[in-house]
Amino acid sequence: MTQLELARAETISPQMSLVAEREGLEAEFIRRGVAEGTIVIPANPGHKNLVPGGIGRELKTKVNANIGTSSDFGNIDTELEKLRVAIDCGADAVMDLSTGGDINAIRRAIVTASPVMIGTVPIYQAGIEAMNKRGAIVKMTVDDLFSSIEEHARDGVDFITVHCGTTRAAVEHLKKQGRVADVVSRGGAFLIGWMLHNERENPLYEYFDRLLDIAREFDVTLSLGDGMRPGCLADATDRPQIEELLAIGELVSKARQAGVQVMVEGPGHLPLNQIEANVQLEKSICQGAPFYVLGPLVTDVAAGYDHITGAIGGAIAAAAGTDFLCYVTPAEHLSLPDPEDVRQGVIASRIAAHAGDIVKGVKGAADWDRQMALARKKLDWEEQARLSLNPELARRVHGKHTSVGKACSMCGEYCAMELVEKYLGASVTRC
Amino acid sequence: MTQLELARAETISPQMSLVAEREGLEAEFIRRGVAEGTIVIPANPGHKNLVPGGIGRELKTKVNANIGTSSDFGNIDTELEKLRVAIDCGADAVMDLSTGGDINAIRRAIVTASPVMIGTVPIYQAGIEAMNKRGAIVKMTVDDLFSSIEEHARDGVDFITVHCGTTRAAVEHLKKQGRVADVVSRGGAFLIGWMLHNERENPLYEYFDRLLDIAREFDVTLSLGDGMRPGCLADATDRPQIEELLAIGELVSKARQAGVQVMVEGPGHLPLNQIEANVQLEKSICQGAPFYVLGPLVTDVAAGYDHITGAIGGAIAAAAGTDFLCYVTPAEHLSLPDPEDVRQGVIASRIAAHAGDIVKGVKGAADWDRQMALARKKLDWEEQARLSLNPELARRVHGKHTSVGKACSMCGEYCAMELVEKYLGASVTRC
Repeated sequence: MTQLELARAETISPQMSLVAEREGLEAEFIRRGVAEGTIVIPANPGHKNLVPGGIGRELKTKVNANIGTSSDFGNIDTELEKLRVAIDCGADAVMDLSTGGDINAIRRAIVTASPVMIGTVPIYQAGIEAMNKRGAIVKMTVDDLFSSIEEHARDGVDFITVHCGTTRAAVEHLKKQGRVADVVSRGGAFLIGWMLHNERENPLYEYFDRLLDIAREFDVTLSLGDGMRPGCLADATDRPQIEELLAIGELVSKARQAGVQVMVEGPGHLPLNQIEANVQLEKSICQGAPFYVLGPLVTDVAAGYDHITGAIGGAIAAAAGTDFLCYVTPAEHLSLPDPEDVRQGVIASRIAAHAGDIVKGVKGAADWDRQMALARKKLDWEEQARLSLNPELARRVHGKHTSVGKACSMCGEYCAMELVEKYLGASVTRC
Repeated sequence: MTQLELARAETISPQMSLVAEREGLEAEFIRRGVAEGTIVIPANPGHKNLVPGGIGRELKTKVNANIGTSSDFGNIDTELEKLRVAIDCGADAVMDLSTGGDINAIRRAIVTASPVMIGTVPIYQAGIEAMNKRGAIVKMTVDDLFSSIEEHARDGVDFITVHCGTTRAAVEHLKKQGRVADVVSRGGAFLIGWMLHNERENPLYEYFDRLLDIAREFDVTLSLGDGMRPGCLADATDRPQIEELLAIGELVSKARQAGVQVMVEGPGHLPLNQIEANVQLEKSICQGAPFYVLGPLVTDVAAGYDHITGAIGGAIAAAAGTDFLCYVTPAEHLSLPDPEDVRQGVIASRIAAHAGDIVKGVKGAADWDRQMALARKKLDWEEQARLSLNPELARRVHGKHTSVGKACSMCGEYCAMELVEKYLGASVTRC
């Protein structure tokens, strides 16, 4: 039985108990969330050393790091290094998006090495194998696609991105409305090319029941991908994107009926003031299914700094109710990320997630900041470092320039904290 | 006559014309904004090589970089290097906050070298000189303070931070309500110590007319500082902060009546969902005076990455109508920033400002992103670099890993843009 089926049968699974413990919440609360589909626990029983995590309503906002080779670059050792860095920096999930080298071996090595949930996009491999065997991605057969999906499930992958809502109807909207950047989702592009060449409906939509059978057998969580996600601000929240979301909403209901855990992917590139509406739309159309966004990026022009544009969008998205943030690295739009890019991406995304959690009222979130403020007030530098997202960095930057007093080298002798304590200390209420 | 007096006399000054040209707006629009006080042009006639810029309604959101020595660290050469880096990265203003070394010489060198507007906080120098001459900051006389202010004005400083609203009434609120981090503004701390020790009202409030006389003589724009700005999320939007804002609101009216240009400073540390309310409150209470925020920082725990927490808050603030962002560097809370910190801080803050400008509908903002999207669609890497915030970095990251095709090394052979162009290219509407 899947976590969803167990929850509906009023059973609290060991995974639900562990998630409850990690979140500081009641196990019954988690069970109820899983049963109604507002919480998912992507935990493939084949992923042996997984420490299960939950994604959804009232839980801490989670962070995913994409790693993986491309056809140009990358090998198994680098990918395992990226996995290690991502986990060290606090990533809650890692997606292996490899499209180069021995894809099967890389995925298996990552699943084996990872205590955090692993996601993949099986259509990449199906498309690439079709190219190798039959000469073109568009010559992929429906069976090729489903056997890739089954292979990933069998290998212990906890969640898979499947662009089931990228239908012919959405492509028609795309043709009519037009776009500046068309389609930037790789999975979406594979499928759109396939649909147009073969003049057939998206097999992930047409044979959704076949997908549900595999997902249910292995308790793989479906992450319904947005092949139509806007790839620039000018294309944000347009008709193809929303048509796809409508299709996804129906598939969420079907998946839940079949006992399959499901979450929904979202943009992408969005002007800052469209983020909240996108979150509300997903929550409404997809009946509270956990929302998993990429960024969102609030401007297109900051190549080299897209971990920052993604953190801006991610913080706003998380505060508005988004449950899961896919990081963006400084290499986005320019190059395959290396381990240092992974580090910068995870930290930026964790800042966004935490800033959102403070607003959401997630248990313990605001208290962390309060502890930091108290340590600052006391000029307790070791405690400040300990409470930092990256203690080692905090120590290094603080130690860069020595100070004559207790304060840091920014204000030296003229530290506001010290001055005010001297004159106001005794007379102020402590809160 | 000050810019404000000229504008009221229906005169379009050369400074107004230049600002109009830089913003792509009509000179009459700028004149009207200056006349009503929703736009300021900090342009001290003593700042000889200034290229004037405007701050306010419907103008591009501007970015300030704080530089300056501390008692622990820094010298004139490093500060001039920071100035150069800040300007190179696109800062619109630089504040010299020096509190160590030969403060007068550093300030004069910076004003002389800078084509962008320069701000200072004269009370730092007044307090430090009082300490040197009389043994304590609190022994500063009222004349000490005003002669420092006049000296800065005479040196060509374009705007000065004056914490005029940090009154005894605000201190009483602070004592009664209590805070976690009390006061983190240095100028505020100097004044609060002074008021408590001397049992007197804040001289910048009591003798505001004397301040206005100096400001009017040199056309120095007053930036009404927030000595009570919250130094942690737990203290945000509390009674001392709002009491101070009320006092500042009255002073804005007085300054305008006296023909003195004025803007208002704001927090600081704020939970993400309080930022918009803070902007609206300032705009309402201070009758549309340009708003100048520090960050805001949306979490306290990201020491070492506060350029990112500041970019999150700054983007939301700018989108909500904030006119001027003070950057925060990765060294914040830990150390005096060095030139590389200045670079990171300015870029992060420019991302925030631009993300806000897209939402505000600032002229040309969205079009920049559209040009970038078109260059991406064409896989035109040189054009993408040219349109980036930091072209040199974009080229370097893109060149890090070579790709076999036209796409970058992230997707290699499987670039969505290329795939979709092949199958969809002819049939899609171009927009």
